[in-house]
Amino acid sequence: MHNPQLNRHGELTHLLSIEGLPQEVITHILDTAASFMEVSQREVKKVPLLRGKSVFNLFFENSTRTRTTFEIAAKRLSADVINLDIGRSSTAKGETLLDTIDNLCAMHANLFVVRHAASGAPYLIAEHLARVGRDDIHVVNAGDGRHAHPTQGLLDMYTIRHYKKDFTQLRVAIVGDILHSRVARSDIHALTTLGVPEVRAIGPQTLLPSHLGRMGVHVFHDMAAGLKDCDVVIMLRLQNERMTGALLPSAGEYFRHYGLTPQKLALAKPDAIVMHPGPMNRGVEIHSAVADGAQAVILPQVTFGIAVRMAVMSIVPGN
Amino acid sequence: MHNPQLNRHGELTHLLSIEGLPQEVITHILDTAASFMEVSQREVKKVPLLRGKSVFNLFFENSTRTRTTFEIAAKRLSADVINLDIGRSSTAKGETLLDTIDNLCAMHANLFVVRHAASGAPYLIAEHLARVGRDDIHVVNAGDGRHAHPTQGLLDMYTIRHYKKDFTQLRVAIVGDILHSRVARSDIHALTTLGVPEVRAIGPQTLLPSHLGRMGVHVFHDMAAGLKDCDVVIMLRLQNERMTGALLPSAGEYFRHYGLTPQKLALAKPDAIVMHPGPMNRGVEIHSAVADGAQAVILPQVTFGIAVRMAVMSIVPGN
Amino acid sequence: MHNPQLNRHGELTHLLSIEGLPQEVITHILDTAASFMEVSQREVKKVPLLRGKSVFNLFFENSTRTRTTFEIAAKRLSADVINLDIGRSSTAKGETLLDTIDNLCAMHANLFVVRHAASGAPYLIAEHLARVGRDDIHVVNAGDGRHAHPTQGLLDMYTIRHYKKDFTQLRVAIVGDILHSRVARSDIHALTTLGVPEVRAIGPQTLLPSHLGRMGVHVFHDMAAGLKDCDVVIMLRLQNERMTGALLPSAGEYFRHYGLTPQKLALAKPDAIVMHPGPMNRGVEIHSAVADGAQAVILPQVTFGIAVRMAVMSIVPGN
Repeated sequence: MHNPQLNRHGELTHLLSIEGLPQEVITHILDTAASFMEVSQREVKKVPLLRGKSVFNLFFENSTRTRTTFEIAAKRLSADVINLDIGRSSTAKGETLLDTIDNLCAMHANLFVVRHAASGAPYLIAEHLARVGRDDIHVVNAGDGRHAHPTQGLLDMYTIRHYKKDFTQLRVAIVGDILHSRVARSDIHALTTLGVPEVRAIGPQTLLPSHLGRMGVHVFHDMAAGLKDCDVVIMLRLQNERMTGALLPSAGEYFRHYGLTPQKLALAKPDAIVMHPGPMNRGVEIHSAVADGAQAVILPQVTFGIAVRMAVMSIVPGN
Repeated sequence: MHNPQLNRHGELTHLLSIEGLPQEVITHILDTAASFMEVSQREVKKVPLLRGKSVFNLFFENSTRTRTTFEIAAKRLSADVINLDIGRSSTAKGETLLDTIDNLCAMHANLFVVRHAASGAPYLIAEHLARVGRDDIHVVNAGDGRHAHPTQGLLDMYTIRHYKKDFTQLRVAIVGDILHSRVARSDIHALTTLGVPEVRAIGPQTLLPSHLGRMGVHVFHDMAAGLKDCDVVIMLRLQNERMTGALLPSAGEYFRHYGLTPQKLALAKPDAIVMHPGPMNRGVEIHSAVADGAQAVILPQVTFGIAVRMAVMSIVPGN
Repeated sequence: MHNPQLNRHGELTHLLSIEGLPQEVITHILDTAASFMEVSQREVKKVPLLRGKSVFNLFFENSTRTRTTFEIAAKRLSADVINLDIGRSSTAKGETLLDTIDNLCAMHANLFVVRHAASGAPYLIAEHLARVGRDDIHVVNAGDGRHAHPTQGLLDMYTIRHYKKDFTQLRVAIVGDILHSRVARSDIHALTTLGVPEVRAIGPQTLLPSHLGRMGVHVFHDMAAGLKDCDVVIMLRLQNERMTGALLPSAGEYFRHYGLTPQKLALAKPDAIVMHPGPMNRGVEIHSAVADGAQAVILPQVTFGIAVRMAVMSIVPGN
């Protein structure tokens, strides 16, 4: 089957999803990110790789934090960055998504960073670009619906590799609202591709999708059993709208069962790392003593995220 | 009569309207834009002409698309661009428009790109700058009320010249809501100045202004008659608020009479080009088969628009 | 007592308040600003002092004007500027202020420009940075609650020094709503530190704080008495919400008593200068004949403000 993310040489030309990415492509991104880590520590934190290139942040769904990380990454690559507040733009005037894209292409866009509430929107754009023959324009998915958030998945893999070196001996638990989480989906695909032998999903029945078994994921409804002997614990953000909805009794009840406390974390391996995509709900899915504790690598994740986004944005236009 | 757009040497110092621009000034802008077309195709799409200069996008009326084209054009000229969301700024605190302008001048602004719902606002600013002796600061009108949208007019002329070479043998039809269109006004002045012998306006009586005859424009209420043997067809966007208003029965009815279909377009010359300022209402003023057809030059218009805006923004500070 | 703005060598590392700043630090900022005044008059208005550095404008309280001045100043220092619309960001998702700050630090921020409705918010951030050992990241207060607006205070001092040379012979009056004004507080501390022998506060009882006497300020409720023989008159903006509130009868009544008219200004010294932090309410706290008159230095204040902000933003990361 044709993979719309890769060109005919098998190289990454769009980043749409981790699903279907060959292991060597993921590893190449992580290796490139490692080289950019050094740039962020320089006095002058810039490289001229995208100088004169135009990066458009197309955020159909608002996310200041993710947009900011892409904006910083693009500016450190010396790109011109244009933020489009799409809610207020021509789509509001009845223009179709693809007409908007065609217009931005006509302005000589080089790269679209796309966030959209609808799963598949970045694919739609990438397919359209292929159809109109614009293989010089690239799409990076910054989160689409419940489907995928590949740069978050990649920065999570960078973090795990940084602290654990080897993927092939690890036990990784993902905890929380996996049903609604594009981060969890991207992480599971990445972990599997990179050879992690045991991926666990921990959460209440109502927040776990039914197909996890088919993806090779071990399902736990009990934190004690699920966290036992894990090397990596990935906590997910509990969306506010779930806390008092039909799926959960209350935020307090959730915390009692699935909130990560020092006591529960003690069941994982002593050197287990704790990750979280942010923003955290302290006292809901994670206790502050864990969030600020020695095992948390939540802020390093953010730092690695800049390097990973620089890597992706520099790799796709080169291919 | 004094022309506030020109300095005492007859050179362009503000771009406020196409009305009153000498033909050689228009031609100079189009020639300069042609040289910038090459820049947008380079690997590094930047020239240092406005390096260290501060361009302020003052959009009192929201328009993401037009603001984006000016922002891209300014960044490709290496300017520092500051976008001011005026609805939220000091004018909301009761400050007058001219106090806001004085303040921005005091911050060493070099160029104001002004969009305003009130006709004449950019003139008011240009006159104020002259009164306070700031001939080093320039104004570009990005659309004022129903009055003018000169950069759109200029990019339309660039497009026509690109495809048709010579203005003096053309028959050009403008179709739609001319009454409320600053694009139509700017196009009519530009076409007349550049020597187009026959300009036609096609639309329902309620959407055509009464003074078209005085401007030398031939009026048609019937598409078949109006489009016959035209070289260029400029479609206008039908504003949503007109579609169900007192001026029109319905969007469907409008499309039946004035929507550009392949059948109607066949009445124009076989090599006629179809233009549209965007964003398009497909199925209202234009059929998708035309919008995406071989005669449409709607996306090239957008590309030319960047070059034309670069030309204007580089010409005015030089004079 | 430890001064959180100064490092262990007594050098400025954050600018949080003018209160507690040694006179030589203030003078060093003003001297540095003087050197930047020349930059703003160059053809290319840029210096590379902050090239590759990331400046985050964190405006928890909206202020387009102040944000714009910091954005311009940072861009003229060649920094990468990221504007965060905090109202829409992660804090809205329940993330704490310090989690937001930690995240931005993890993105390798170099400087935070902070505007916040709560007094003390910039201190909270600076203390947190010290606690987590990030002495490479700096905070500039762009206005916090009723507490301080130190860059406005500094630009006011720059303006006074520019026109009056010597602080030690001056009589300075501050007129209006001193109770709610962070500008007034910062000005009083700066004037006192720089050795101004007589600082006066003029306003209705309801808009003057009770502790002015302790600060060494002479209180007047009558404009005629208060303005007599002053060298400098600093008018404050009357917030719209005060005009019809319990503290004041009406805007018209206020203007009759405390609005600065040419007649009242004539009571000050003939060469007195009139200042205003903007945006002005013409006809409320100031008559247009004064605002636009020969003694007004309100627009030069804006110009000096850019240079002062460049000075502060270039000094703190150097220390």
